[in-house]
Amino acid sequence: MPPLRSWFSIPRGSHFSLANIPFGIVSTSSNKSQRVAVAIGDHALDLEAFAANNGFSALSTIQPHQAVFSEPSLNAFAALGRPIHSVVRKYIQSVFAENTDFPNVLKNNSALQTQALLPLKEVQCHLPFKIGDYTDFFVGMNHAYNCGVMFRGPANALNPNYKHLPVGYHGRASSVVPSGTPIRRPHGQFLPNPSSEEKAPVYAPINRLDYELELGAFVCKPNKMGEPVPIGEAEDNLFGLVMLNDWSARDVQSWEYIPLGPFNAKNFGTSISTWVVLMDALEPFKVKGIENDKEVLPYLKQKGDKTVYDIQLKVDLKTNPGNLSTVANSNGRHLLWSFPQCLAHHTSTGCNLQTGDLLGSGTISGTSPEEHGCLLERTEGGKKSIKIGNEERVFLKDGDEVTFTGVCGADEEALVGFGTVTGRIEPALNLGH
Amino acid sequence: MPPLRSWFSIPRGSHFSLANIPFGIVSTSSNKSQRVAVAIGDHALDLEAFAANNGFSALSTIQPHQAVFSEPSLNAFAALGRPIHSVVRKYIQSVFAENTDFPNVLKNNSALQTQALLPLKEVQCHLPFKIGDYTDFFVGMNHAYNCGVMFRGPANALNPNYKHLPVGYHGRASSVVPSGTPIRRPHGQFLPNPSSEEKAPVYAPINRLDYELELGAFVCKPNKMGEPVPIGEAEDNLFGLVMLNDWSARDVQSWEYIPLGPFNAKNFGTSISTWVVLMDALEPFKVKGIENDKEVLPYLKQKGDKTVYDIQLKVDLKTNPGNLSTVANSNGRHLLWSFPQCLAHHTSTGCNLQTGDLLGSGTISGTSPEEHGCLLERTEGGKKSIKIGNEERVFLKDGDEVTFTGVCGADEEALVGFGTVTGRIEPALNLGH
Ligand SMILES: [Ca+2]
Ligand SMILES: [Ca+2]
Ligand SMILES: [Mg+2]
Ligand SMILES: [Mg+2]
Ligand code: NI
Repeated sequence: MPPLRSWFSIPRGSHFSLANIPFGIVSTSSNKSQRVAVAIGDHALDLEAFAANNGFSALSTIQPHQAVFSEPSLNAFAALGRPIHSVVRKYIQSVFAENTDFPNVLKNNSALQTQALLPLKEVQCHLPFKIGDYTDFFVGMNHAYNCGVMFRGPANALNPNYKHLPVGYHGRASSVVPSGTPIRRPHGQFLPNPSSEEKAPVYAPINRLDYELELGAFVCKPNKMGEPVPIGEAEDNLFGLVMLNDWSARDVQSWEYIPLGPFNAKNFGTSISTWVVLMDALEPFKVKGIENDKEVLPYLKQKGDKTVYDIQLKVDLKTNPGNLSTVANSNGRHLLWSFPQCLAHHTSTGCNLQTGDLLGSGTISGTSPEEHGCLLERTEGGKKSIKIGNEERVFLKDGDEVTFTGVCGADEEALVGFGTVTGRIEPALNLGH
Repeated sequence: MPPLRSWFSIPRGSHFSLANIPFGIVSTSSNKSQRVAVAIGDHALDLEAFAANNGFSALSTIQPHQAVFSEPSLNAFAALGRPIHSVVRKYIQSVFAENTDFPNVLKNNSALQTQALLPLKEVQCHLPFKIGDYTDFFVGMNHAYNCGVMFRGPANALNPNYKHLPVGYHGRASSVVPSGTPIRRPHGQFLPNPSSEEKAPVYAPINRLDYELELGAFVCKPNKMGEPVPIGEAEDNLFGLVMLNDWSARDVQSWEYIPLGPFNAKNFGTSISTWVVLMDALEPFKVKGIENDKEVLPYLKQKGDKTVYDIQLKVDLKTNPGNLSTVANSNGRHLLWSFPQCLAHHTSTGCNLQTGDLLGSGTISGTSPEEHGCLLERTEGGKKSIKIGNEERVFLKDGDEVTFTGVCGADEEALVGFGTVTGRIEPALNLGH
């Protein structure tokens, strides 16, 4: 398929080609109210302004709902359902198409262009959804295996349940923050000498601060409490995907997590990219995930085998002295379970998901060290340092900036990308001890 | 201290004496909008109507904030802070006092009495808070010990971290429901033969459905992300307490919980009592909790040793055929860590709590079988059945109704009670397999 061409200047290599049209929440210095926009090239199209100026004049289905574009979150738009997301995206693509059928809407309307097309560098992006509940899964099997080897050896690396259900745990919704939010090195309770017989924990700034390379999926369609979502319907309950950094305090995690799982090791901050890529935009990039050699129960069995996405993922680490290195390359295909399977499992006991709920994939690692999605794996539990220019790291230091980049496709004029999610480590607070 | 006497008729033995004044959210058939009320005797005082009719004429501090009483949750009232909760409660007590200084407000105002004093049996109670995040702790040490013995034997019953930090995990906020909401027996993935070498899970209606007797605490004061709450300030960040039933699917739990903790076993429903008892009302009932024989780190060390509450707790089980038995008596004192300690720990890494967040204590058991707060303990993992009239139970059957009752004090004219939290088990859905 040749790339869609636009009358509008979209830089070559942009993540936000006409094939994408991701949704987000923006504000500007001249209009501080948060509102819905789509990203296109190096601009955001302000959909509040677009709607107010008859931008949707040729799309009657959205007209009764245009108030959703003035909301400070995508929840109301998402709740309209996937068929509406589809037609709105396609309509915006058609408005920007070289030979648009609707030239008067925007192509020949320089007043509206000036008003509604905002340079991305002048736009502030906010959390795209009001998140009710956040759940983090653990379905990046290479990561689960590598961590399992460290803790239990290769024979027992994966627990017996691992290939039968998407393992997950409830995360902390309040501390999910948009890309760019600084992350303060937390204090926490941990064992300074974990191997010592005597368990003498301290409360201090943590040492083993890590990132986790993940994808996140937002729920658009709620299910009633007590009513599981059938696997065949699960994908349509999802709005779209973001990249997610599940910042992790490894020293806290290893001390606290038995028997009820990760808690304070994970709840001090989770960063997400701010432009949500719609399920429709990702559709051409569907691929097989990791093969499951166990028989999957019917409530988790998807039609077809292309259930995850070929998303090229990259982790860059930039230090305070200015050294920069790509510390991982990975791919969205390295998952044992798909997001629809995660959603079907999550609701299998009747748990009610709501519009705006966020599902994390778990850390996405390939098989080689250069594809490992967190430092715990990459440095074999802190034993092997990696080079960042003339510096070395086993875990993150203050001032380090971690940036994930994710993109689908190879045609520089038709990329479907996520942009970046970035966060810089601030020094721990002085708590006076 | 002699009980406060009222001009208003409060039945002897009422949980809602003048010493209590718990807050909740109500609606009635004639006014379906949800609004704030307090319970007094067998009535609710509708604070929206009370405020609108100059009920607060003698309390100037609340006047600029009276809109909070028209909200459909307690979040806005709670966010005003503990000093305001205190003065509002004391003022309402003074309005109802036998020799009230403000007789014209209500005592001599029969029109307002008719309008604002609603018989509880005509009132529908709703979820008291809009809950952003729900966290369940595990600080009922007898419960943790009993469960640990079952899984690991007495020598290793408690994990090494147990006495150093309040163990907890993130729960599911969306499925917290008010007392009276029916609970559907979930389907779930579990092992029908857990001891078999071959792990062959099924997806089916669960067999081992259990309750967990807990207390819940609501947060009133938020803390900023990155900023821990000092232990000395933690109690004032709490609004009040409810009873909480953490419905649990034991067959799902034992299969899913390693390594990331309970997930689907817990997220299909959590019931809470609807009248929130303020921290001030509980103050006279402070007692020592379970003694901790480990040195507690300074960030968790509370001043004084009375940090938990003498709340008499009771579990009644009523079967569909109509048999009824009290299956447990326990007490709020059986906790190793207090709610302020849980809150301080929760924020110790900088996790931001928000007004309306809910903290569960974990199952509260005494030491004898008659004091066990869940059936898993009471029946030794399903091995010893208990009698309910001429019926037997190891876990809950369809039609069973579980009711928790909680009350402080012995003076029948000055009880500070929680009322009840109840839920009845509905049969599993027919999912067509
Ligand atoms: Ca994770
Ligand atoms: Ca519990
Ligand atoms: Mg996190
Ligand atoms: Mg529960
Ligand atoms: Ni421009």
